[in-house]
Amino acid sequence: MGRWQPDARGRLQQAALELYGERGFDNTTVAEIAEHAGLTKRTFFRYFADKREVLFSGAQELEELFVSAVTAAPPAAAPLDAVVFALDSVAAMFEERRAFAARRQQIIAANPELQERELIKLASLAAAVARALRARGVADSAAILTAEAGITVFRVSFERWVDPRNERPLRQLMDESLEQLRGVTAAGA
Amino acid sequence: MGRWQPDARGRLQQAALELYGERGFDNTTVAEIAEHAGLTKRTFFRYFADKREVLFSGAQELEELFVSAVTAAPPAAAPLDAVVFALDSVAAMFEERRAFAARRQQIIAANPELQERELIKLASLAAAVARALRARGVADSAAILTAEAGITVFRVSFERWVDPRNERPLRQLMDESLEQLRGVTAAGA
Repeated sequence: MGRWQPDARGRLQQAALELYGERGFDNTTVAEIAEHAGLTKRTFFRYFADKREVLFSGAQELEELFVSAVTAAPPAAAPLDAVVFALDSVAAMFEERRAFAARRQQIIAANPELQERELIKLASLAAAVARALRARGVADSAAILTAEAGITVFRVSFERWVDPRNERPLRQLMDESLEQLRGVTAAGA
Repeated sequence: MGRWQPDARGRLQQAALELYGERGFDNTTVAEIAEHAGLTKRTFFRYFADKREVLFSGAQELEELFVSAVTAAPPAAAPLDAVVFALDSVAAMFEERRAFAARRQQIIAANPELQERELIKLASLAAAVARALRARGVADSAAILTAEAGITVFRVSFERWVDPRNERPLRQLMDESLEQLRGVTAAGA
């Protein structure tokens, strides 16, 4: 009757990432992850519904952080500024987990099924940000356009940030992408 | 030994959309679609791999149209202007098929699995547009940001356009979304 294991969750995540990286996601079983972490399958399923969830269980947390930051942005902030305000919090959270994020990204990039799942999570994140903007009084289509632009900035910067050759902080890369976006949309005006 | 059926493809699509609309996508079989179109299952499979493909077989055509228009945009056009140039061609193509597009949209909106497939197709479209922009000499992340912005403009306008209450042309709605995007990204500058 599984007694509490100190940081079982973190150990399972760590073990899963190692095995996914070595053998590939498809060739790793839950039993192997549990064994590698020195835990039981039963413990695994107390924390994760399946082996894919090890990679995506953070999505809910990310969405909540994003949405609460958009909601907490100064009332006078323009829609995109409210999203930029949220990107600050998100960048700070990720800076503490760069090794995990980089490893996870590599595993996802190697597997089309995981890429599709990631895409769906990002779309759901964009929809949640759009709802948070609408709650701030932003009109429907402006909210969607702003949220999608913000998530694209996030995605593009994130990919550059986890690149092994990168040494710059995520926040700085986000600022750069944001400037680029402003440049791109202003160019044809 | 199936002789050629005049517009079998179109008849199958028409029949499928009717049945998906009446019974739901999940409750419709290929046999029923073929029967409704006055054709055989064998003929169905000559045109579509499965019942989902009836809804997504146009994605390839849309991608080709988009990419070739981006490629054909005047060499001096700014990245976003090249995408706007492509939106013109895309809007013209869709104006001829509004009834089909609207019906298809309703069916997809009613089914989460189809929504995911649509999302993946749109992401693949955005990636193809980004590649076409890179081929024009646009830098990597600017190409992605521009392509994603263009696809978001397309998606937002498209959803407004297929709304039964809408009477405005797709091109006009695209222009409006584009102006909105420019406004949104300029606001915080």
